[in-house]
Amino acid sequence: MLTFADIVQARERIGGVAHRTPVLTSRQFNEMAGCKVFFKAENLQRGGAFKFRGAYNKIASLTDDERKQGILAYSSGNHAQAVALAAQLFGTPAVIVMPHDAPQAKVAATRGYGGEIIYYDRYQENREETGERISRERGLTLVPPFDDYLIMAGQGTAALELLEEIPELDFLIIPCSGCGLLAGCSVAAKHLRAQIRIFGVEPEAGNDTWQSLRKGERIEIAIPQTIADGLQTAAPGKLTFPIVQELVDDILLVSDDELIETMRFILERMKVLVEPSGAAAAAAVRHRKLDFDGKRVGVILSGGNVDLKKLARYL
Amino acid sequence: MLTFADIVQARERIGGVAHRTPVLTSRQFNEMAGCKVFFKAENLQRGGAFKFRGAYNKIASLTDDERKQGILAYSSGNHAQAVALAAQLFGTPAVIVMPHDAPQAKVAATRGYGGEIIYYDRYQENREETGERISRERGLTLVPPFDDYLIMAGQGTAALELLEEIPELDFLIIPCSGCGLLAGCSVAAKHLRAQIRIFGVEPEAGNDTWQSLRKGERIEIAIPQTIADGLQTAAPGKLTFPIVQELVDDILLVSDDELIETMRFILERMKVLVEPSGAAAAAAVRHRKLDFDGKRVGVILSGGNVDLKKLARYL
Repeated sequence: MLTFADIVQARERIGGVAHRTPVLTSRQFNEMAGCKVFFKAENLQRGGAFKFRGAYNKIASLTDDERKQGILAYSSGNHAQAVALAAQLFGTPAVIVMPHDAPQAKVAATRGYGGEIIYYDRYQENREETGERISRERGLTLVPPFDDYLIMAGQGTAALELLEEIPELDFLIIPCSGCGLLAGCSVAAKHLRAQIRIFGVEPEAGNDTWQSLRKGERIEIAIPQTIADGLQTAAPGKLTFPIVQELVDDILLVSDDELIETMRFILERMKVLVEPSGAAAAAAVRHRKLDFDGKRVGVILSGGNVDLKKLARYL
Repeated sequence: MLTFADIVQARERIGGVAHRTPVLTSRQFNEMAGCKVFFKAENLQRGGAFKFRGAYNKIASLTDDERKQGILAYSSGNHAQAVALAAQLFGTPAVIVMPHDAPQAKVAATRGYGGEIIYYDRYQENREETGERISRERGLTLVPPFDDYLIMAGQGTAALELLEEIPELDFLIIPCSGCGLLAGCSVAAKHLRAQIRIFGVEPEAGNDTWQSLRKGERIEIAIPQTIADGLQTAAPGKLTFPIVQELVDDILLVSDDELIETMRFILERMKVLVEPSGAAAAAAVRHRKLDFDGKRVGVILSGGNVDLKKLARYL
């Protein structure tokens, strides 16, 4: 179970290490969206995404022996960088299992944080099996990307901070992949403000949580084709999904075009860089996927790790 | 004369209207620069640059009659947008005199803030004369870009906020054009911390203040060719220059390549968009134009208004 107390404890652990990210506003965005939006800028978090909160909370919770032995994560994205960075701060050896064709920029960033990278062939090998085999062989603790209460508690601190700063929100809108951020933030937000309405956002092509909520159970889809590379999960988590079922009103869907358009707007007008996945919640508000008219809406900008060459193409 | 009290008064006037912009840090930037840098993110200011501080302070200081009559500014850049935005907030009519070939994006942004635009032919007409003629004919108060104590006092609030948050700075590094930001921030910073060392930064091609300091008097150069379009002044101001002479240690010079490289780094790693001019102070630190080794260095990121098409070229 995930409780509000877990999130408060996570906040104590990450305090002074994770950034307390700023809450941004934009009159122009408000005018287009027809409501008052408060952006929690997790793209300005250490490692470029909210992922650092959960990774640091998890590693901080290990025993000294476990930390000495080392940790392992499998990810080619923001989670990899966050785990490598958090581990480095603890002096904990970190092994990151990445596909052999992972983008060079992400490999370099992860290595820059001191992570040891082990490649697997994503067409021949199963990522989870490869990761679990290595962690068994070397006695490493697995740091999962989302399906873990300590990870969720860490991610929930983003909503805790946002609601402390802007208490009277009507809505909270959150990008949704494996649902770790969504679940953690929902527990924090509902505790602080029972009447708040919470929506996750998925890309249209990757609507596994949207489908799962309708079916009443977790369904798995093929790896979705979307530019939102941070939201390409095939299914919500085992532990995250029940929390989403209980606390989240629904999932909103956005197109890739809406993601790029919103990312461009945020860059040009608000001067901050978000990756396509990181713009998902903002895109849902900007393109009025719900009647937000006149309401106070919290939006999590979840990350900003974009390769500059890719960015140039989006512009 | 410009006093610390003027800056405190400016802060009261702009309080709750201008953003108190966040102070950003980046471990990676620190590692490359060999010092500890605190970035005052004025690119996240309303209107996308520090200019809003001075413009709002100036318009707030006018009499009701003057405000009703209206104001005039000549600028094709950040000052134009700032004045139009500040005037709009007061319900004051604003006339902005712009060159007939000003970038469409800047014209659109200025008009978006409700400014009336009057074009002049920059090859046939003198900007100052055109502006002064119109302001006389229509009874408009001129809002100068830098050479005005109320403007300087407004800009100085950026340093006031930075030093309140990070009091023990060894250096303060500031982009330098007409020296309004540099002069205002110097008065604030030296009052709060007498031992702080202050440097302005100019593009190599536009070193009018660097030359003026060496000559001991204001010299005028031809309009410089540099990508730093916000730093293309020909001479420091009449009122700003004596303050710079008294309080500023020296001017540092950066190349266009250093500006672009720094802008890219800040975008990719720190996830915020700065324009080339806005990256000038950061570029001087990153490229170690001075021995900052191990020191605590305040850097003003002065603005972030870049056309996305141009940005794509820089990437």
